[in-house]
Amino acid sequence: MSAQRVCVSDFEEEARRVLPKAVYDYYRSGADGQSTLADNVAAFNRWHLVPRVLRDVSVVDLSVSVLGQRLSMPLCVGSTAMQRMAHPAGETATARACKAVGTGMMLSSWATSSIEEVMSAMTSAPGSGGVLWMQLYIYKDRELTLSLVRRAEEAGYKAVFVTVDTPYLGKRLDDVRNRFKMPPHLRMSNFSSSSLSFSEDDYGNDSGLAVYVANAIEPALSWDDISWLKKHTRLPVVVKGILNGQDAVQAVNYGVSGILVSNHGARQLDGVPATLDVLEEVVMAVGGRCDVYMDGGVRRGTDVLKALALGAKAVFIGRPVLWGLACQVTPPHPTRDGCSWIRTCRRILMTSCCRSVAEVSRSLVRRADCTSRM
Amino acid sequence: MSAQRVCVSDFEEEARRVLPKAVYDYYRSGADGQSTLADNVAAFNRWHLVPRVLRDVSVVDLSVSVLGQRLSMPLCVGSTAMQRMAHPAGETATARACKAVGTGMMLSSWATSSIEEVMSAMTSAPGSGGVLWMQLYIYKDRELTLSLVRRAEEAGYKAVFVTVDTPYLGKRLDDVRNRFKMPPHLRMSNFSSSSLSFSEDDYGNDSGLAVYVANAIEPALSWDDISWLKKHTRLPVVVKGILNGQDAVQAVNYGVSGILVSNHGARQLDGVPATLDVLEEVVMAVGGRCDVYMDGGVRRGTDVLKALALGAKAVFIGRPVLWGLACQVTPPHPTRDGCSWIRTCRRILMTSCCRSVAEVSRSLVRRADCTSRM
Amino acid sequence: MSAQRVCVSDFEEEARRVLPKAVYDYYRSGADGQSTLADNVAAFNRWHLVPRVLRDVSVVDLSVSVLGQRLSMPLCVGSTAMQRMAHPAGETATARACKAVGTGMMLSSWATSSIEEVMSAMTSAPGSGGVLWMQLYIYKDRELTLSLVRRAEEAGYKAVFVTVDTPYLGKRLDDVRNRFKMPPHLRMSNFSSSSLSFSEDDYGNDSGLAVYVANAIEPALSWDDISWLKKHTRLPVVVKGILNGQDAVQAVNYGVSGILVSNHGARQLDGVPATLDVLEEVVMAVGGRCDVYMDGGVRRGTDVLKALALGAKAVFIGRPVLWGLACQVTPPHPTRDGCSWIRTCRRILMTSCCRSVAEVSRSLVRRADCTSRM
Amino acid sequence: MSAQRVCVSDFEEEARRVLPKAVYDYYRSGADGQSTLADNVAAFNRWHLVPRVLRDVSVVDLSVSVLGQRLSMPLCVGSTAMQRMAHPAGETATARACKAVGTGMMLSSWATSSIEEVMSAMTSAPGSGGVLWMQLYIYKDRELTLSLVRRAEEAGYKAVFVTVDTPYLGKRLDDVRNRFKMPPHLRMSNFSSSSLSFSEDDYGNDSGLAVYVANAIEPALSWDDISWLKKHTRLPVVVKGILNGQDAVQAVNYGVSGILVSNHGARQLDGVPATLDVLEEVVMAVGGRCDVYMDGGVRRGTDVLKALALGAKAVFIGRPVLWGLACQVTPPHPTRDGCSWIRTCRRILMTSCCRSVAEVSRSLVRRADCTSRM
Ligand SMILES: Cc1cc2nc3c(=O)[nH]c(=O)nc-3n(C[C@H](O)[C@H](O)[C@H](O)COP(=O)(O)O)c2cc1C
Ligand SMILES: Cc1cc2nc3c(=O)[nH]c(=O)nc-3n(C[C@H](O)[C@H](O)[C@H](O)COP(=O)(O)O)c2cc1C
Ligand SMILES: Cc1cc2nc3c(=O)[nH]c(=O)nc-3n(C[C@H](O)[C@H](O)[C@H](O)COP(=O)(O)O)c2cc1C
Ligand SMILES: Cc1cc2nc3c(=O)[nH]c(=O)nc-3n(C[C@H](O)[C@H](O)[C@H](O)COP(=O)(O)O)c2cc1C
Repeated sequence: MSAQRVCVSDFEEEARRVLPKAVYDYYRSGADGQSTLADNVAAFNRWHLVPRVLRDVSVVDLSVSVLGQRLSMPLCVGSTAMQRMAHPAGETATARACKAVGTGMMLSSWATSSIEEVMSAMTSAPGSGGVLWMQLYIYKDRELTLSLVRRAEEAGYKAVFVTVDTPYLGKRLDDVRNRFKMPPHLRMSNFSSSSLSFSEDDYGNDSGLAVYVANAIEPALSWDDISWLKKHTRLPVVVKGILNGQDAVQAVNYGVSGILVSNHGARQLDGVPATLDVLEEVVMAVGGRCDVYMDGGVRRGTDVLKALALGAKAVFIGRPVLWGLACQVTPPHPTRDGCSWIRTCRRILMTSCCRSVAEVSRSLVRRADCTSRM
Repeated sequence: MSAQRVCVSDFEEEARRVLPKAVYDYYRSGADGQSTLADNVAAFNRWHLVPRVLRDVSVVDLSVSVLGQRLSMPLCVGSTAMQRMAHPAGETATARACKAVGTGMMLSSWATSSIEEVMSAMTSAPGSGGVLWMQLYIYKDRELTLSLVRRAEEAGYKAVFVTVDTPYLGKRLDDVRNRFKMPPHLRMSNFSSSSLSFSEDDYGNDSGLAVYVANAIEPALSWDDISWLKKHTRLPVVVKGILNGQDAVQAVNYGVSGILVSNHGARQLDGVPATLDVLEEVVMAVGGRCDVYMDGGVRRGTDVLKALALGAKAVFIGRPVLWGLACQVTPPHPTRDGCSWIRTCRRILMTSCCRSVAEVSRSLVRRADCTSRM
Repeated sequence: MSAQRVCVSDFEEEARRVLPKAVYDYYRSGADGQSTLADNVAAFNRWHLVPRVLRDVSVVDLSVSVLGQRLSMPLCVGSTAMQRMAHPAGETATARACKAVGTGMMLSSWATSSIEEVMSAMTSAPGSGGVLWMQLYIYKDRELTLSLVRRAEEAGYKAVFVTVDTPYLGKRLDDVRNRFKMPPHLRMSNFSSSSLSFSEDDYGNDSGLAVYVANAIEPALSWDDISWLKKHTRLPVVVKGILNGQDAVQAVNYGVSGILVSNHGARQLDGVPATLDVLEEVVMAVGGRCDVYMDGGVRRGTDVLKALALGAKAVFIGRPVLWGLACQVTPPHPTRDGCSWIRTCRRILMTSCCRSVAEVSRSLVRRADCTSRM
Repeated sequence: MSAQRVCVSDFEEEARRVLPKAVYDYYRSGADGQSTLADNVAAFNRWHLVPRVLRDVSVVDLSVSVLGQRLSMPLCVGSTAMQRMAHPAGETATARACKAVGTGMMLSSWATSSIEEVMSAMTSAPGSGGVLWMQLYIYKDRELTLSLVRRAEEAGYKAVFVTVDTPYLGKRLDDVRNRFKMPPHLRMSNFSSSSLSFSEDDYGNDSGLAVYVANAIEPALSWDDISWLKKHTRLPVVVKGILNGQDAVQAVNYGVSGILVSNHGARQLDGVPATLDVLEEVVMAVGGRCDVYMDGGVRRGTDVLKALALGAKAVFIGRPVLWGLACQVTPPHPTRDGCSWIRTCRRILMTSCCRSVAEVSRSLVRRADCTSRM
């Protein structure tokens, strides 16, 4: 009997054992020296929770509204590519789990299940909630790009999250060492040609995905492309990958519906700040003119609470979902992992004496190094 | 011959060897990632002692007055549940040791010896000092709650410490892994039913105590319950579990006799500040309107001195007492461990050139990172 | 098949395996306690990159102009002594590699290839770029010193970098332990006598190089010698080894063409600041009156970017070149290692959304401990 | 052949091998948790040296004047008890070495060589320098105390350093574990009775020295005793063990000739600041009205320089001398270790471009965490 898994690192530990090394490495890695990778997680320890006491917490309401959709909790699933490397059902399993717990899922452009497959998996799954959003990479081929958007619109996706931090793929050393490429039985399901679906035989002496990006993804991406995208879709557009107040103001000026503070899970440029550390700067700069979300390093219920206290409307998790998939924590037993996040968040709110997400205020957190100087 | 134990960690080390794993884990654990658990102890290293010299310290007086009772020293025994898991005589042994050294003991609602048993053990033990206080969990069943208070009053307990940080039990990962429950030969002795005395057979796939709390303890606890409690007892009421100045002011306004700055030994919400780091904030907010005590991480005589210098009237220790019990440092040899704390505190006062607790002033401590900037 | 080397530490690891211990130790060591050695590298982690997004980076220009010469990138090879201990072709191999990638190389006075040999290696190598500068130690024998300068001038070197931090050689403990001296088949090629070419048999119970310096190098070196040197050469003079604003102002007043902020790879005085940490102070003090360069601890492309953002015109690397030589990454395969630096720098610029070195501004970096306080 | 010893930790390493465990432990230990023990050393890393360049350092003068005596360098030997446990010649060997290098030695009251023996060893040794000072513990028996002073005066000692931080002996855990007492063949040589010479058979279940101090040393010591001492001797009186500006001012008011900033090698009260961190506070408070010295954690030549830059007139070393004795680095080969300190200090001055101790100014050091904010 395998020991009970009681926290995300238990899941990662097991995932490390069951996944092929190159897959685990791809999922786990950050760029270059990986200092930001560790910092994303460590940043949460630099903030203390300062709970209140003696407020009736017999009833706690975790629900939030994100881009017009009601979610059961302020924790959503972020876009991570190629989920079928972790579990045969891949993104469709994730979608079913999100439906079961009533939260949202962002589908990667580079999914190993197609836009339509994933929506149909969510629709047909038991449960009443569940929302899908489309993560968009802008390809050099703009028609191709728009076709992804159109397919998402038609399938019923509720927003487009356009990734703006990847004009070039970050150098993940293990992927170079492993000459990472897609396992032969899989492909990026939203594309038909073998070059676009990342299923070529040989990418040389490098990370295959880095070669793929250099070939296909638009390095000339600029703010004008946000206008272009907005013109071509009726869905709300969110920019994913903002790390400072100046770009955030720019995004507001270009009319985005939301900003996702993200450093791409520390996979693009090493040495950038932990997302939690810049969240408040972005929130201040935006001043309520659009929603602000964050991802990066969220591993515990207290992490969610801290991000909310610093102004995030909701947070996203990337790797924890992959570890869950690798541990087969999926339909038909979807609720185990999903629910534990809900239960965890509920417990944390209760123990902090917050009755709802609305009661999570800035005063709930303090920088650890300021604690005793208040 | 076993090596001499000269500091708390020697006792913990031996306790780890002699106790059943699930018991040791329960005693030791903090909530979730356990960062606050380590921080409670580490916080003491963030404060330096700045001793004076050349003040006649041939006579040193350690005694203090707590809630109207004279104690031999400013160090008391905090409430820790289920002490018979560590030693056959459990709480009664602790009570006898406190009598021998003349200090106070707070009895847990969840003791494995009854309110009356513990008082009678203290009364019949040799020695002239010794005080008992009652730690109170407020149960959903309010009559049951009041009956605990009444029994404490009748038995001669001198105050009620009401725990306000546990609307829900913190998640201690090892307790979940161990599916922690009471050893079969023991029970919470203040209750008669098997459900209330935590002696059911099966609490499922979780920490048994977490299930117990969710079933029995009041999550709707609020400030009005402090008023309610004060109305029903003539004993002084102290709130245990305050971590910030705002709640402290609230507590003063509700007329408490004292505030115990505590994060429940880091067992409730991980990521909260170390208690030492918020002590001064609470002391400032209270402004002398009631006594302030603290617990959490006290492991050495210098720790006691630092807490006093930051404004605590007295401090409490939790785990060190459990390690002592597990090492059989109890009656008929009660004084060995107890006295070493007294001797230690006396030595520390002498070496710092303080002749009495009253001479321990704020200037005796400095934040370590400020030392050279004074 | 040996594993692919994807970062500088991979090269160092292999160098450690293939080099004789005394050689590896000499290359690696810092002075005394080696705290600055580690700090030079760690300092880069104390600065965060704050990249912008959505600026067209389809075309990126890495080139810079240094002392009147156009270089392909702002990364040059610093002067490290005795390169033939690492590779049979030594400094001539380095020169060919610099030509191939179009950057500059500073030749040590203590090279194991002569001034003329190295220039002729660079001239005859394929490629269109490549610049040579002469690093100068000022000897007690001033005529000898001037002869080095004259030979460099005649050979076509483009500047003199005079080292000002070595009135005495720093104590590198391993060199004392190893009684470090030159391998018998090698000598400092710019000198003819065995005492000046560091090829004596016995230097006693000490680092041979320390004895050599005490015998030959001028400890009376002073600012007047900068005037003296300038009077005797038409080449631009750069001072190498400045660590504070006051000396930088002095250097400007003495009419230098550039300042190289350097602590000699932490080999002279342990406990001095990391060079990155004082770079900005020097840049501010200089106020644009001459160029400022830096070396010390540069190991990644992001390091180059950080130094540029803090005001360096270009940066130099010392040890990484030695590890590359030890790994035989040299002509006829010169470009592998060299080019990866270029590609790395290009990638980093792209991912930070800078189109050219001119676009690298101060706002691209923040002290890590300030991040969340902006 | 044993490896060459090139830094203090090499000596300590060998001392650990050759000394009996109880002796090594006694020499090495700090009080309680030993955090200050580590911090005394670590503090030096919190200060950076910021050397200047290009000042003629062909002639360097290390000499200083301490309490009217000329010393060859600003580094003296502090008082450490019972040196014959490390080397058969004990304190007499140390005295001879100090003579050889021309510096001062402070003799412990608890020496295993008598006041007279040590002076005669120094007088008869080759060399022209060398000064002796007497460290004084004030005993409950005041006549005995004065007899020590008188003997020192008569023997030609040049000052009395009265230790003010030991009203009670700090608790050194290993000494309790080892029940530390003097090896049978040795005694404190300045006393005749077995109780005063620390040569009793049994000190019970504790550190023998702690028992000795509780019995014999004056815990009622106060500022008036400084006046008393000054009245009874014509020697300059220095207080040893000051850690803050207030006590320093007090000392000046009581007319001392000097203040030795010391925490007794971290052996008295754990958790006090590192001495280097409070040195400047004391220097400021004293404002030049008497000399300020420091000891604690000095292990390298750069440490000496940092202490001087922060205002110390001279520094003392304790443990390094003991490790030297244990390694038999003594007469007839006294100069090896001694000289290396001199040579080291000279080298450090040269590499920092200071020509004399007088040129070591405050601007030579900066707090490490301020470096880049200047
Ligand atoms: C294996 C993996 C694949 C990812 N793929 C994508 C992707 O296709 N598109 C995208 O915008 N972000 C991608 N990301 C970034 C995530 O959306 C998210 O920003 C990040 O994982 C959050 O950090 P966390 O993993 O620490 O929770 C990926 C991250 C990982 C770990
Ligand atoms: C094993 C254990 C059981 C505890 N049981 C109770 C309890 O029943 N009621 C309560 O108010 N606090 C309880 N506490 C918290 C303690 O009263 C106290 O706040 C904490 O132990 C102090 O920290 P320390 O263990 O670091 O000294 C318990 C703590 C431990 C370690
Ligand atoms: C093995 C070695 C030899 C060096 N020789 C010289 C030299 O001959 N002249 C000189 O000015 N600097 C010399 N330096 C210092 C370098 O020019 C440069 O300042 C330093 O290596 C940069 O730090 P890095 O090695 O961390 O990149 C040497 C450094 C090393 C590591
Ligand atoms: C083994 C040992 C014995 C000591 N004995 C004495 C003593 O007898 N009297 C005294 O004033 N200080 C004594 N000290 C303290 C030293 O004088 C000095 O303050 C300290 O050793 C300096 O720190 P360092 O050992 O880090 O150099 C002793 C220290 C040590 C390590």
